[in-house]
Amino acid sequence: MGSVGDVTPQRLLFDEPLTLRSGARIAGYELMVETYGRLNEDKSNAVLVCHALNASHHVAGTHAGIEKSEGWWDNLVGPGKPLDTDRFFVIGINNLGSCFGSTGPMHLNPATGRVYGKDFPVVTVQDWVDAQARVLDRFGIQQLAAVLGGSLGGMQALDWSLRYPQRMRHCIAVATAPNLSAQNIAFNEVARRAIITDPEFHDGFFYEHGVVPRRGLRVARMIGHITYLSDDVMEEKFGRQMRAAELGYSTSDIEFQIESYLRYQGDKFSEYFDANTYLLITRALDYFDPAREHGGDLSRTFASALCKYLVVSFTTDWRFSPARSREIVKALLDNKRDVFYAEIDAPHGHDAFLLEDPRYHGVLRAYFDRIAAEHERPVPGGTATVSHRLQGVAV
Amino acid sequence: MGSVGDVTPQRLLFDEPLTLRSGARIAGYELMVETYGRLNEDKSNAVLVCHALNASHHVAGTHAGIEKSEGWWDNLVGPGKPLDTDRFFVIGINNLGSCFGSTGPMHLNPATGRVYGKDFPVVTVQDWVDAQARVLDRFGIQQLAAVLGGSLGGMQALDWSLRYPQRMRHCIAVATAPNLSAQNIAFNEVARRAIITDPEFHDGFFYEHGVVPRRGLRVARMIGHITYLSDDVMEEKFGRQMRAAELGYSTSDIEFQIESYLRYQGDKFSEYFDANTYLLITRALDYFDPAREHGGDLSRTFASALCKYLVVSFTTDWRFSPARSREIVKALLDNKRDVFYAEIDAPHGHDAFLLEDPRYHGVLRAYFDRIAAEHERPVPGGTATVSHRLQGVAV
Repeated sequence: MGSVGDVTPQRLLFDEPLTLRSGARIAGYELMVETYGRLNEDKSNAVLVCHALNASHHVAGTHAGIEKSEGWWDNLVGPGKPLDTDRFFVIGINNLGSCFGSTGPMHLNPATGRVYGKDFPVVTVQDWVDAQARVLDRFGIQQLAAVLGGSLGGMQALDWSLRYPQRMRHCIAVATAPNLSAQNIAFNEVARRAIITDPEFHDGFFYEHGVVPRRGLRVARMIGHITYLSDDVMEEKFGRQMRAAELGYSTSDIEFQIESYLRYQGDKFSEYFDANTYLLITRALDYFDPAREHGGDLSRTFASALCKYLVVSFTTDWRFSPARSREIVKALLDNKRDVFYAEIDAPHGHDAFLLEDPRYHGVLRAYFDRIAAEHERPVPGGTATVSHRLQGVAV
Repeated sequence: MGSVGDVTPQRLLFDEPLTLRSGARIAGYELMVETYGRLNEDKSNAVLVCHALNASHHVAGTHAGIEKSEGWWDNLVGPGKPLDTDRFFVIGINNLGSCFGSTGPMHLNPATGRVYGKDFPVVTVQDWVDAQARVLDRFGIQQLAAVLGGSLGGMQALDWSLRYPQRMRHCIAVATAPNLSAQNIAFNEVARRAIITDPEFHDGFFYEHGVVPRRGLRVARMIGHITYLSDDVMEEKFGRQMRAAELGYSTSDIEFQIESYLRYQGDKFSEYFDANTYLLITRALDYFDPAREHGGDLSRTFASALCKYLVVSFTTDWRFSPARSREIVKALLDNKRDVFYAEIDAPHGHDAFLLEDPRYHGVLRAYFDRIAAEHERPVPGGTATVSHRLQGVAV
């Protein structure tokens, strides 16, 4: 198993305006894209990998000359890895409104000649998926072998399967949910308030003031981090470990290692992440709710689905708990869709979807093997049998 | 069941210096105190009620002429109520460093002639308990019938039982833990960072600047609120309810009812709560860890306990889960202490300890009846039988 090695992102320019769910139109935009592996002749081996809150188009491989520049899902994507780039053509796209090179709030708004800032239109999961579909058009890809995503990326994969059912054969939705719970929205809202009420946010136009609302970003990231980790793994990793042997009796100095860890994560994040992007992406999470248009009925929502599904959850994920994944599985089964569900007993909480757990990667490897086998030697009727055998297996 | 009616707090002045755990000394201080019911002749019917983060000495009754001024545990304490003021003399004390009248960071530091601000010494659960013991001395109470507290108040009740074992007959610890977990500390730390990094905190001396770090206090309270409620009750109460029929496509306006609720809670809190007090009290929570002096061995820690215990937890409390209460119960049983444990199946999360759940209040009522019966007609050897019958009963 190797790395895809040094990779070079492409910047794709789209001149045709994109009308967003909000009704707003983006006149033209750029998207950063990376691809790994080779697109086969009939363009049938492409896998789109959708990113979550703070990731990007840089899914795998390294950027030449930059240390520790491995892509965010490098443990999964590469030659011989579960998503094998010797077999599949893998595409990573930085979403609109993000802050890793694609058009976002830190760029010039052609309508005003001013940096977008708060004026960047609110983007939704559907908008991202529509923009991703255009990237596929550009590559001449009619049908994807699969769309894969974890967390918010999983929501994009689900949305793909509902709105572009003909354009994909498999949907792989990991550690995700059919919508956010009140508690999920609550955590997002606190993070947004921390950013928006930071005086250096300047109503979203901080760029012009030469400052960054770092305090808000730090707090937002600290909150996020707590929800990514399970209580258990935090306990095991940090527990009540102190920094010094004796209590320092201070409310502002670091006393416990968990404080040190969180502050470090917050500091690091505030140095590279855009505050407006944080607001936009958490809002896209809040809004995602495909059943809304179907009176809240998730089974009716999935009636339009055609592809096959792999749904994966993690037992200790309290952000998007297995119960939320099971809602998706139930809705698919209600529609007699082909679905394979794996509930992985992993200790790491929501973060598990990014980690290299052997059982988890084993499931993904097996599933991609199946996709490849279907593609290489399609056996009519055979795949349904396989998938029914796997259905509902807890790993 | 009635109210104790209008009550008048007393302000008690203590001239004798108090040496704190940190080694700091408070030269003199005042504590706000309320009492309900009548102290009997042999002064044996007193129950001390300890408060948690944002409560005070005002446990029950009303303040004359002020609407909605019911004490924070008014549903529990009063004539005919579970903690019956016709039988017991109930004492509420606002802890040192709090912001409801007792000496705290907003008061003048006699050593500098300046408001204490950040210079107010870090107080611990033990310091509060020591200061409470002095209040009992002032009342001439040698032995309490019980110490009762929920959450941080429960930690004070536990500490009382470990360090003043002769001065109480019963310890009632509700929705509490033998110490904070890494996740608990993490949430406290984020809240503190939100306050400390608010530019209007002014390194803790905001009083002199005529401002209040409201932004930080709001965020702190919003975080706290999420952890007080269960995921389920939040879902039932708010779910994904929108404020308007259509999405507003805004990252800053309120879209979901849960956002409205949290903002309201944050705003209200920031108007009355002191920022330095928030830091001090969350730190006292972090530090509480009676087993620390016993090499982390909770069973050894409780070897010094003499009184009888009632431990209560709530199934949906994820801040201080039943598992944490069971640690306490196990340590007590290891020492063959008399303990009654009730795990209440309530949907409200940590907040349940303040609510009027009939099963919960039933348990407290039965326990206080037992205390009263012991006191009125002590039957040698009899009580142990009763308590053993009740041990480990899940309600």
